[in-house]
Amino acid sequence: MTAFLAVDWGTSSLRGAWLAADGAVLEERAFPRGILSVPAGGFPAVFEECFGDWMQRPGALCLISGMAGSKQGWAEAAYCACPAGFADVAGACRWIVPGRVAIVPGLSCEREDTPDVMRGEEAQVFGALDLLGLQDGVLVLPGTHSKWVRVTAGRVETFATVMTGEFYALLRQHSILARTLPAAEGGLDGEAFDAGVALSLRSASLMQTAFSVRSLALFERRSGDWLASYLSGLVVGEELRSQQLAKVKQVIVIGSDALTERYARALATQGVRALRAGSAATWRGLWKIAATLPR
Amino acid sequence: MTAFLAVDWGTSSLRGAWLAADGAVLEERAFPRGILSVPAGGFPAVFEECFGDWMQRPGALCLISGMAGSKQGWAEAAYCACPAGFADVAGACRWIVPGRVAIVPGLSCEREDTPDVMRGEEAQVFGALDLLGLQDGVLVLPGTHSKWVRVTAGRVETFATVMTGEFYALLRQHSILARTLPAAEGGLDGEAFDAGVALSLRSASLMQTAFSVRSLALFERRSGDWLASYLSGLVVGEELRSQQLAKVKQVIVIGSDALTERYARALATQGVRALRAGSAATWRGLWKIAATLPR
Repeated sequence: MTAFLAVDWGTSSLRGAWLAADGAVLEERAFPRGILSVPAGGFPAVFEECFGDWMQRPGALCLISGMAGSKQGWAEAAYCACPAGFADVAGACRWIVPGRVAIVPGLSCEREDTPDVMRGEEAQVFGALDLLGLQDGVLVLPGTHSKWVRVTAGRVETFATVMTGEFYALLRQHSILARTLPAAEGGLDGEAFDAGVALSLRSASLMQTAFSVRSLALFERRSGDWLASYLSGLVVGEELRSQQLAKVKQVIVIGSDALTERYARALATQGVRALRAGSAATWRGLWKIAATLPR
Repeated sequence: MTAFLAVDWGTSSLRGAWLAADGAVLEERAFPRGILSVPAGGFPAVFEECFGDWMQRPGALCLISGMAGSKQGWAEAAYCACPAGFADVAGACRWIVPGRVAIVPGLSCEREDTPDVMRGEEAQVFGALDLLGLQDGVLVLPGTHSKWVRVTAGRVETFATVMTGEFYALLRQHSILARTLPAAEGGLDGEAFDAGVALSLRSASLMQTAFSVRSLALFERRSGDWLASYLSGLVVGEELRSQQLAKVKQVIVIGSDALTERYARALATQGVRALRAGSAATWRGLWKIAATLPR
């Protein structure tokens, strides 16, 4: 493989990177062209517009991960069932332009007679493990729908989706708690965040702990940014409790600096070490998949 | 006490009942005049308009429970701290027209260094216990903010607010799950409800189980009304799990027929008996408080 374009095409954004043969990132681009902004049949034109020049380069190969492979995307790439490693994912890629452009499938797993799914995170997981030189581990990709992933011998055994970011936004914007919280998101109040994490970890349900945001305001014991950071702690603590980390010593946290900072802080209160990986994990994961791609 | 008007003045509705000296309900009225619809200073006029004729009767006494006693209501009646029985509440009533019209205070308690509050439910609790001839018990008042109440020797020892109805509405209307649920609420699918209750009871967090509504739809295993009933089961099951009912044999459920039916069904799966009480509990509770009122 001499020339490689890695693309992360999500719901609200489109990002791409041009990689050297050894996986080094040479150039990066980002566009506000998530799949929700692309009209039916419009994917080839947007792709050409954003990456056409790179694809002119000799021997260029492109792998695309993310929601572009969903029913609402460019072309559906059926989920690859767990356990699955990067070679399994490579074998299940869907070619758009044979030998040139392919879409990476997401992963699915079964838990409690219920399916779970991810799209895009699988590339980040394989990339983070490669960057860290690990074959096993517990990983979390925090976000609107956080993914908790268990990897053994390089293969994703199982994973779980936790709607942490969405619950936070619902409570922050649409619930009765919104009345007592500042409209704009302020900086993190560490003590407030820790108090929220601690309460959730020793409680049984966010449906009960969340009301404390209101009652603390009602009795004028707390207000404003303190309560917003506290609510953030409540949902992150709830997420950690849901994952039963009693025997886990370290967690690989993949995400933006602001989010991984909060998770590292919350994990530390449980004596769990956080290894961090940033956006480079996506490019490295796609490069790993591409390297084993049958062409 | 010869003539008594019991009023439940909540956020969105205003209800009143005229009771005989022995507590029997003789007449009932309901108005869409919750405190949110009353302009500042408008409470006396609305009260006169709705109940003026009843208050003309000889010796008429009126007790009002609910949000009319909040900061945003007619006059603030400070919370009565737990443990508290109906006599404590009677002693803390706030007179609006001395000897004629008084507002019943809500209750407050402390749990995990955090206050919790109720307004209006205290009258229902005392009334239900009186109607059932009980002095001890665990009670639940299901709703937007469910209240779980522990009573010993006729006094509320402690209670907890669980935001069950609000979480259901947030997920139903504002979350990603709304896309896979029918716009209108259908009838209860018992099997779906039970499946949701069971999953929540053996899980750790609604933030994780809720995503199954989406994944089951994504794989076209379930759809429509089944999923709506399943989500209802998930939140009710989460509420039961949060209350650690392992040693509880029976729970007094106070509310509308539709809601108490769901809770009785969910409790039965845990081998817990449900004793039901309806809206008459409010009138009976206010009558009990009135009977001990210092006039």
